[in-house]
Amino acid sequence: MRATVIHNPRDVRLENVDDPRIQRPTDAVVRVVAACVCGSDLWPYRGVRRLSAPRRMGHEFVGVVEETGAEVTTVRPGDFVIAPFVLSDGTCVDCRNGITTSCRNGGAWGAPDRDGLLVDGGQGEFVRVAVADGTLVATPEMPDPAMVPSLLTLSDVMGTGHHAAVAAHVGPGSTVAVVGDGAVGLCAVLASKRLGAQRVVVFSRHVARQKLALEFGATDIIAERGAEGVARLTELLGGTGADAVLECVGTKEAMQQAIDATRPGGFVGYVGAPVGGAELPIGQLFGSNVNIAGGVAPVRTYLPELLGEVLDGTIDPGRVFDLELPLDEVVEAYEAMDSRRAIKSLVRP
Amino acid sequence: MRATVIHNPRDVRLENVDDPRIQRPTDAVVRVVAACVCGSDLWPYRGVRRLSAPRRMGHEFVGVVEETGAEVTTVRPGDFVIAPFVLSDGTCVDCRNGITTSCRNGGAWGAPDRDGLLVDGGQGEFVRVAVADGTLVATPEMPDPAMVPSLLTLSDVMGTGHHAAVAAHVGPGSTVAVVGDGAVGLCAVLASKRLGAQRVVVFSRHVARQKLALEFGATDIIAERGAEGVARLTELLGGTGADAVLECVGTKEAMQQAIDATRPGGFVGYVGAPVGGAELPIGQLFGSNVNIAGGVAPVRTYLPELLGEVLDGTIDPGRVFDLELPLDEVVEAYEAMDSRRAIKSLVRP
Repeated sequence: MRATVIHNPRDVRLENVDDPRIQRPTDAVVRVVAACVCGSDLWPYRGVRRLSAPRRMGHEFVGVVEETGAEVTTVRPGDFVIAPFVLSDGTCVDCRNGITTSCRNGGAWGAPDRDGLLVDGGQGEFVRVAVADGTLVATPEMPDPAMVPSLLTLSDVMGTGHHAAVAAHVGPGSTVAVVGDGAVGLCAVLASKRLGAQRVVVFSRHVARQKLALEFGATDIIAERGAEGVARLTELLGGTGADAVLECVGTKEAMQQAIDATRPGGFVGYVGAPVGGAELPIGQLFGSNVNIAGGVAPVRTYLPELLGEVLDGTIDPGRVFDLELPLDEVVEAYEAMDSRRAIKSLVRP
Repeated sequence: MRATVIHNPRDVRLENVDDPRIQRPTDAVVRVVAACVCGSDLWPYRGVRRLSAPRRMGHEFVGVVEETGAEVTTVRPGDFVIAPFVLSDGTCVDCRNGITTSCRNGGAWGAPDRDGLLVDGGQGEFVRVAVADGTLVATPEMPDPAMVPSLLTLSDVMGTGHHAAVAAHVGPGSTVAVVGDGAVGLCAVLASKRLGAQRVVVFSRHVARQKLALEFGATDIIAERGAEGVARLTELLGGTGADAVLECVGTKEAMQQAIDATRPGGFVGYVGAPVGGAELPIGQLFGSNVNIAGGVAPVRTYLPELLGEVLDGTIDPGRVFDLELPLDEVVEAYEAMDSRRAIKSLVRP
């Protein structure tokens, strides 16, 4: 089959690799219907995160189950399934606590598992899914093809934006600011609106993203960044910061802006994978009672709740995809996101 | 009058200073009935926090109102009052949000206010209280003298331990671990028990403090520290960390132990004033979804709720005082806490 492999910064290739097959009774093999490129895929692509060896890519995909191992009970061949961006067994103490990203028997896509058996990446034709029962979520029936992009966002960006909002205690009447106008930031807007936020302010200087943010429920856009952006927010909110600031980037600068934009006693909900060794300024946090909540989003936990609203048309997060390409053009899918020509790229094998 | 002044590390003196008087219509003058030494007073005492000039000391006291300015309406001469460890007006946006420690018109005891007028420290005979209406809380009637120590804890340590527990989302059924066996840590035990925690584990290697922790509701004591202490906790809790870890020290080591002791998705509630420039390890926090909540405790907000339970005898946090001295011996009150001979010292003018 064909699968995406990164060799070096800016060196992503579509290669012929072995077809996956069931290796354990808890495995499933899924034929990928759609996959996408993640903002975090750009860190190795840009060389910000180092690679020690070539690596299969893709951790967001939807597809159809081809085959299941003897012990798999929750999905069966022919099911349309959504794969969260981390594997999880659904039974360990951390999964039971809802933190499926800390699953003790889970793992990552595109990497060998504990026994050295490769779990394929999502940017390919087929994937061997380990701990399939805990990981995959099947739709009740084969979805309308037009719904595939929105279902695909439940693999990561929609669940991640939702995690930022939930971690930051967004609820009815909240004032919210969103740092980051990528797909996660835009989904965080949609999540905040859905949770009842009264005001959702987005920091963005990109016209197409501003437009989608407003369509997703943002009430205000701020083009300024850093201290200027915070001053503008404070002015908009009548002299104080936001109750909840959703940090959807992962850089030190974005985190600092998020902290500065939060009112005393408010929450930063952060979901951007931290790059550049940023640490948090505890003195400032202590003095202002700004709380830091979030982390790598346990999207598996949120999937059933969000899936229902995608299927009944309440939310349409798939609009974050503004580029769709065949898998053959996966290199362009990376380049378009890297240059910010695309908010988010979808690829179809 | 006599008041406590720190000049240099280990150089605390009881000095004769000017009697305070009403300077603004929103002031009150309070005769101090009891005051105490705070764990944070030990930072300048030990030279960990530098002093640029001599400073009046004491930010925890209770007393009787002697005189009030023309605009003061919530307390009157003769009232027994509790002073939170930070002044606050009760009307600004941050006070209305419950974060009285960020009050825009508040300030600190023992320091000049914005206009350069000294607000006295609590370790003296009298105190000029600015923004008296927002700051002071009067008891319904003159309390039994035996209740004074418990009322005095509402100035700081009981409200601060409670803040750690509230920030860490302690509730019915929670598993809690407490880092720090000083007065705040012990009050955090009492607060956790009161909020319904099912298990309260205290890190302590000090027999008298272990005993009081157990009397306050701790279910387990761990004498080990650092990685060994965390391993012991994980064993006690059946293989994972605590839902809530209350960090009541303020050092980098204590914060790291608290983070390591928290289960994925759990909360560190921290209230120890950070010393030594500790920053937070965002990579570890991101990966584990451990949330960091808390800060300088807005005890004024919690005072009415906790006062009721002190007055009706439900809680008796005053037991953290194991040394009581006349104000004349305030130097010994510091020395006893510094050498850990006393958990917490109370002084009476």
